[in-house]
Amino acid sequence: MARQKEVFNAVEWKIRVADGSSETLVPEAGLASRLWLGVKNMIGGLVLKVWRFLEKAWDLGVDDPRKVIHCLKVGIALTVVSLFYYTRPLYEGVGGNSMWAIMTVVVVFENTVGATIAKCLNRVFGTLLAGFLALGVHWIASQSGEKLEPLIAGASLFLLASAATFSRFIPTFKARFDYGALIFILTFSLVTVSGYRVDKLFNMAHQRISTIVIGTSLCILVSMLIRPIWAGKDLYNLIIRNMDKLANSIDGSVAEYFNRSGGLTDCEEEAQKVFLGYKCVLNTKATEESMANFARWEPAHGHFNFRHPWKQYLKVGAAVRRCAYCIEALNACINSENQASEFIKKLLGNTCLRVSSNSSSVVKELAKIIKTMKKSSTIDLLVEEMNAAVKELKDDLKSLSLSEAGTSENKRTEKISSKPAAAIPLMGMISMVSFASFQIEIASRIESIVEAVEELANLAEFEHPEKNKQNQANIKVAANEQNDEETKV
Amino acid sequence: MARQKEVFNAVEWKIRVADGSSETLVPEAGLASRLWLGVKNMIGGLVLKVWRFLEKAWDLGVDDPRKVIHCLKVGIALTVVSLFYYTRPLYEGVGGNSMWAIMTVVVVFENTVGATIAKCLNRVFGTLLAGFLALGVHWIASQSGEKLEPLIAGASLFLLASAATFSRFIPTFKARFDYGALIFILTFSLVTVSGYRVDKLFNMAHQRISTIVIGTSLCILVSMLIRPIWAGKDLYNLIIRNMDKLANSIDGSVAEYFNRSGGLTDCEEEAQKVFLGYKCVLNTKATEESMANFARWEPAHGHFNFRHPWKQYLKVGAAVRRCAYCIEALNACINSENQASEFIKKLLGNTCLRVSSNSSSVVKELAKIIKTMKKSSTIDLLVEEMNAAVKELKDDLKSLSLSEAGTSENKRTEKISSKPAAAIPLMGMISMVSFASFQIEIASRIESIVEAVEELANLAEFEHPEKNKQNQANIKVAANEQNDEETKV
Repeated sequence: MARQKEVFNAVEWKIRVADGSSETLVPEAGLASRLWLGVKNMIGGLVLKVWRFLEKAWDLGVDDPRKVIHCLKVGIALTVVSLFYYTRPLYEGVGGNSMWAIMTVVVVFENTVGATIAKCLNRVFGTLLAGFLALGVHWIASQSGEKLEPLIAGASLFLLASAATFSRFIPTFKARFDYGALIFILTFSLVTVSGYRVDKLFNMAHQRISTIVIGTSLCILVSMLIRPIWAGKDLYNLIIRNMDKLANSIDGSVAEYFNRSGGLTDCEEEAQKVFLGYKCVLNTKATEESMANFARWEPAHGHFNFRHPWKQYLKVGAAVRRCAYCIEALNACINSENQASEFIKKLLGNTCLRVSSNSSSVVKELAKIIKTMKKSSTIDLLVEEMNAAVKELKDDLKSLSLSEAGTSENKRTEKISSKPAAAIPLMGMISMVSFASFQIEIASRIESIVEAVEELANLAEFEHPEKNKQNQANIKVAANEQNDEETKV
Repeated sequence: MARQKEVFNAVEWKIRVADGSSETLVPEAGLASRLWLGVKNMIGGLVLKVWRFLEKAWDLGVDDPRKVIHCLKVGIALTVVSLFYYTRPLYEGVGGNSMWAIMTVVVVFENTVGATIAKCLNRVFGTLLAGFLALGVHWIASQSGEKLEPLIAGASLFLLASAATFSRFIPTFKARFDYGALIFILTFSLVTVSGYRVDKLFNMAHQRISTIVIGTSLCILVSMLIRPIWAGKDLYNLIIRNMDKLANSIDGSVAEYFNRSGGLTDCEEEAQKVFLGYKCVLNTKATEESMANFARWEPAHGHFNFRHPWKQYLKVGAAVRRCAYCIEALNACINSENQASEFIKKLLGNTCLRVSSNSSSVVKELAKIIKTMKKSSTIDLLVEEMNAAVKELKDDLKSLSLSEAGTSENKRTEKISSKPAAAIPLMGMISMVSFASFQIEIASRIESIVEAVEELANLAEFEHPEKNKQNQANIKVAANEQNDEETKV
């Protein structure tokens, strides 16, 4: 049957593409039955697709119930705003323009509070600015005679729409006011154009603005009062999570490198998954930026005040990402075909392990600083330990190159192997040396994370550890809550 | 003066935050003059900001005139659609709903043709689907008595709005139908809610759909006929540009590494800029994905047919990016504090240079394959040469480790240096060895780009070089055109 269908498809294809030579092929089954088969397959495929789609949707909902809650919130906001239309007295109040309240809710309601507020403010100010400008243009146009009126309106529309569209290309403007510019163009063109017909412009403008204000305030209220999702807190959690992933990857890389020779057990596969966590860090730049952008619109919430230095989180994120690039490079050593010889691995293994465990504990401590929002008394010590381990690794490398590589390794290969003496241990040494020098590079990049986090701690006025003995219990509870609410990526 | 202002600010801040102790500070100048100063500074700052903004905007326009053209296109489309409102006969035709045509143009008109078409189709089908569903719900509600009617309408609104909002979280759905889902919610709520009042629902629906069709077709026409910007072609150019940047960075990295010791001349600074081109490649994933997403909506244009394998460009892009990560690692070697000794640099320099120049010429050839859209007869040869150079570098490393590092270097350091023998040349060797092993890794990652490009050449049915002697002239002209039109990032 499958072959039959293939032939059928091939014929179809040939008719479309080639020069009709496919007519020589005689259909093997009746047209009706083939059609039926095709329809059956199509429906089967469709059902399967829909089923997979639903499965995916279900998984998504189970993974992150906040998304489901957001959907219900949209439903609630929309149903509430419909009341403005259903209920007669309100209907008389804001006129036939209730439509705009509904439209506002649909368009403005976003996942996070910050994004919703940003869109609301953009909508309100874009509408106001465009409305006043349009009224001004309308007044000028109406003063200049019937013939010039559409000309002036048209020209002003053309110029302002072009200018506003252009402003949307400017990155700094786009990041904050993209939606406002869109609404500006929309309102300006609607008011200018309808100004030509509707005489009660002021009245219309008043109605429209009041409906928009109703819509936006409803959106802001619902998004802030019913289980709010804060962009700022999401950014905060994302940075902490990325740092944890980085720490695990640093730990994992060494384990991975030194255990590579044997086959993987289930447990090791799990470990490898953890090790590959850094890959998530590589591509979160855009997410971080948009979150930081929304976070600045948010009012004080949880432990974050209104002017929390969200931009600094971007710097921390960038430093973390630079480290992740380095682990990606380490990964290349790990997958290198030239594995290090066991001898050298044993020699450097312990120091490497110390460097990586010290590095990862620095990163973990940094994550903890952010998580608990208080400065750490141990971070300087940890950095010192890391640097000491790095120095030891450097010394090991120096001594190794001279004595082991030049002497012991030589002797060893002469004794054991019958292959040409240069071949085995020295290519192995290269992989090990690269690996070690990347450990060193990672440690130096971690220092730039330390700097970024310290700057954050100063800007955000994190507490000193001695000051807050009494607060520790509270903060621990808060940190646990944050852990629970973390979204899974 | 600046200090005065600082004090003034500090007082303000203290009043807001602390407990009023700031009253002890006596103002040093009159309130009026200080106010005047503040206002003057504010206005000065504002003017400067606006000026900088305009400068930035001007640079943007000069850099990429296509953006200016896009803005003019939006202006044209909006002015044309206003005709539907200004001109009486048309006005009678589509009723008071002309507003929807204007709104459609404002919201739907995007920078690239693909994005515009995607939004148009989303808008039309979202509106149609929601309209029919809403009419069905309205019919059911009207059959079930006056009391149940608002209840059914409200419940259906709540359910469908929540479900549609949820669908926007599903990545595969979001990528293509995000805007459609938004329009679906909007139309459904508007029609359901107004169904309670407006009796001529069918008439209204007809009018609205016809205005939307007018708006969308106008947008599609303008965006396709007046200097179209194709998402597909942009993606194509972006990938080629990224490959060129990668090739330059590979070339540059070696030059950078071996010339590091001396100070930078102007020319070398220029070279360093070219070398850092790979950094642009690191963060283009999101851009590539959205472009590929829009490109699939575009009709045949230039050398691309309707079913051009745009997804394969993403694979090529990913392979290029993996290479770029590796160069980021190389960069670490270059900036490493332990520079290789001149002796070892001289020993490995030539082979490293050969590997890198062979690698970069493979990448350049791959870029040329995509640029000219025909398979290359020399690519296999180039890959072979690259692999030969890699093998030579590996051999050099092997021999170096034994003889040079163990023997010659020892002798040399014994002769020349009075410092401890282990210190100088061997840390230098480590940087060199890492550098060389990353050259090897880059070469192996380039092979995965080769694979991706070859798959692309097969999927897109690039011509064989021998087949198209007569076409070469045409294609060269086309390639030059593409070069001219390339956007600058």
